[in-house]
Amino acid sequence: MPELRKDPIIGRWVIISTERGKRPSDFTTTFRRKENSACPFCPGNESATPPEILAFRPTPSEPNKPGWTLRVIPNKYPALRIEGDLNREGKGIYDKMNGIGAHEVIIETTDHSKDMPDFEEKEVEDIIWAYIQRIKDLSKDPRFGYILIFKNQGEEAGASLEHSHSQLIATPVVPKRVTEEVEKSKAYFNYKERCIFCDIIRQEISENERMVVQNDFFIALEPFAPRFPFETWILPKSHIAHFKNTKKEAVSSLAKILKETLKRLSLALNNPPYNYMIHTSPVGESDEIDHYHWHIEIIPKLTRVAGFEWGTGFYINPTSPEDAAKYLNEVKIPTPV
Amino acid sequence: MPELRKDPIIGRWVIISTERGKRPSDFTTTFRRKENSACPFCPGNESATPPEILAFRPTPSEPNKPGWTLRVIPNKYPALRIEGDLNREGKGIYDKMNGIGAHEVIIETTDHSKDMPDFEEKEVEDIIWAYIQRIKDLSKDPRFGYILIFKNQGEEAGASLEHSHSQLIATPVVPKRVTEEVEKSKAYFNYKERCIFCDIIRQEISENERMVVQNDFFIALEPFAPRFPFETWILPKSHIAHFKNTKKEAVSSLAKILKETLKRLSLALNNPPYNYMIHTSPVGESDEIDHYHWHIEIIPKLTRVAGFEWGTGFYINPTSPEDAAKYLNEVKIPTPV
Repeated sequence: MPELRKDPIIGRWVIISTERGKRPSDFTTTFRRKENSACPFCPGNESATPPEILAFRPTPSEPNKPGWTLRVIPNKYPALRIEGDLNREGKGIYDKMNGIGAHEVIIETTDHSKDMPDFEEKEVEDIIWAYIQRIKDLSKDPRFGYILIFKNQGEEAGASLEHSHSQLIATPVVPKRVTEEVEKSKAYFNYKERCIFCDIIRQEISENERMVVQNDFFIALEPFAPRFPFETWILPKSHIAHFKNTKKEAVSSLAKILKETLKRLSLALNNPPYNYMIHTSPVGESDEIDHYHWHIEIIPKLTRVAGFEWGTGFYINPTSPEDAAKYLNEVKIPTPV
Repeated sequence: MPELRKDPIIGRWVIISTERGKRPSDFTTTFRRKENSACPFCPGNESATPPEILAFRPTPSEPNKPGWTLRVIPNKYPALRIEGDLNREGKGIYDKMNGIGAHEVIIETTDHSKDMPDFEEKEVEDIIWAYIQRIKDLSKDPRFGYILIFKNQGEEAGASLEHSHSQLIATPVVPKRVTEEVEKSKAYFNYKERCIFCDIIRQEISENERMVVQNDFFIALEPFAPRFPFETWILPKSHIAHFKNTKKEAVSSLAKILKETLKRLSLALNNPPYNYMIHTSPVGESDEIDHYHWHIEIIPKLTRVAGFEWGTGFYINPTSPEDAAKYLNEVKIPTPV
């Protein structure tokens, strides 16, 4: 019998379809890398990108030249533009405004052939620091309501370049999806006087059916009502509303758990294309709000969104999160030699 | 300068990205048909499907044997099961229930090689009658909150079989996406005392910038804030809340406009994979509600949903609806010989 499950945060129902019960080997989308000598993200090709906004250079070297280990650049084909005013206006029943925002690319490595699960821990830490630094900087711009960090890995997951990178988009309004999550979490807090994410973490640790891995500061788990097979969330164990306020001592734990979670997904599912998104509080929210709890959502790209999902917002998931957690726990991570 | 536009119904913002301004020829996903002698939807293979629920047979013939022109069958791998009780229950903060519902397949034609834009008008009319008949029948089951009709055409759009078919899924709860649309339309009605869809139709006819085609009873247009390039909606011009209440005299107009709209999309975009979904009122809503207006949403599958969309609910659309309407209007439909 299939099971209907409700996401406790935003109330979205999903169908866990036992009839279609899929194992990792039933999914066959694999991210394969082609050779590309003209990659604009490779060292030596810095002039092919707009000038860098930020770069980590272990020894002093000139901007927009080799010598960096991580680079942040404006997107060459930005979805939103940094200069200008919003000019919000109506036309009959419609509303529009100028597409003002920021669209940046975080080039995570100099090595065209390496993916995040195989980075050194220090490299992943640097990526997290770059995220934090860029968010802190852009948060000062009063035009922005929200700043999203996300990663598309592989063509099927929407990446147009294969060299490992993440993106940042700052939007002038707080997106619907974010408002909904924050408001629903607030409603829960108003009723229970507890953070819903903290409650989820407590229940997941106690039930121990959907846990993937945990360390001092973070936990990785399969959510109770996942939209997609092997959808995985990483959450800080202690309540914290804004990603950018992650404490120095927690950054290396986050790098460790992100790398290990992606490695387990990669080994279980044969290097699938994936997306991850950092869900954090809107820019304008105070640093100490009690009801929202930042987290990362990772979606391996294994199934297709079709008419039923578009028409209802329901998702049909052919792998239960309990099975997915079991498969991810069974993965043997080879010890580096 | 990119433009941010807000969907007037549910308030979703989209980015119309002029930087990426894409023309029809920039999209290259094409639905290609393979030969398949073992297709369970072809005449002669009726025993490969569950027994039919409904069939149109122009001359009397035995059920589950050839002689039909259209067949409705239960999905062999249903996302939801028809037998049983809901048994809604909680576990800590989580909610679940049995996956009760209906999942049916409408086999639209006997011809494995033909798609809807090339059907005879009479065939499309029959499909609409089959939709109406199945919805009317399932609406009597008190366990169901919503009945969705949708079509996935092509593998990229989620179709697992290529023989032209639509699907019906009845769900025990009213899906979030539907509730949201109905509630927001109601809020507009409470404020303006007019249906928002009727207002949209009036403004679109008067502005004449996003119109695709219209006839006596229906209008096809590119919505003001489309999530996807060439997203197209078909709406009845007069207010009507439930699709199932479509009047006899309007069915042939609907068949005509659906066929012509799909034909224009197919010719402009070189036979793209697509989804369509019928958005109609929940089963429990009275027949005469003033605030909701049923319609069809057609989404050609041309772009990928990636991290930004998943993280924010914003969509980046590289083709403005005004350009899309222009391209669709320029299509020359060959006159049948």
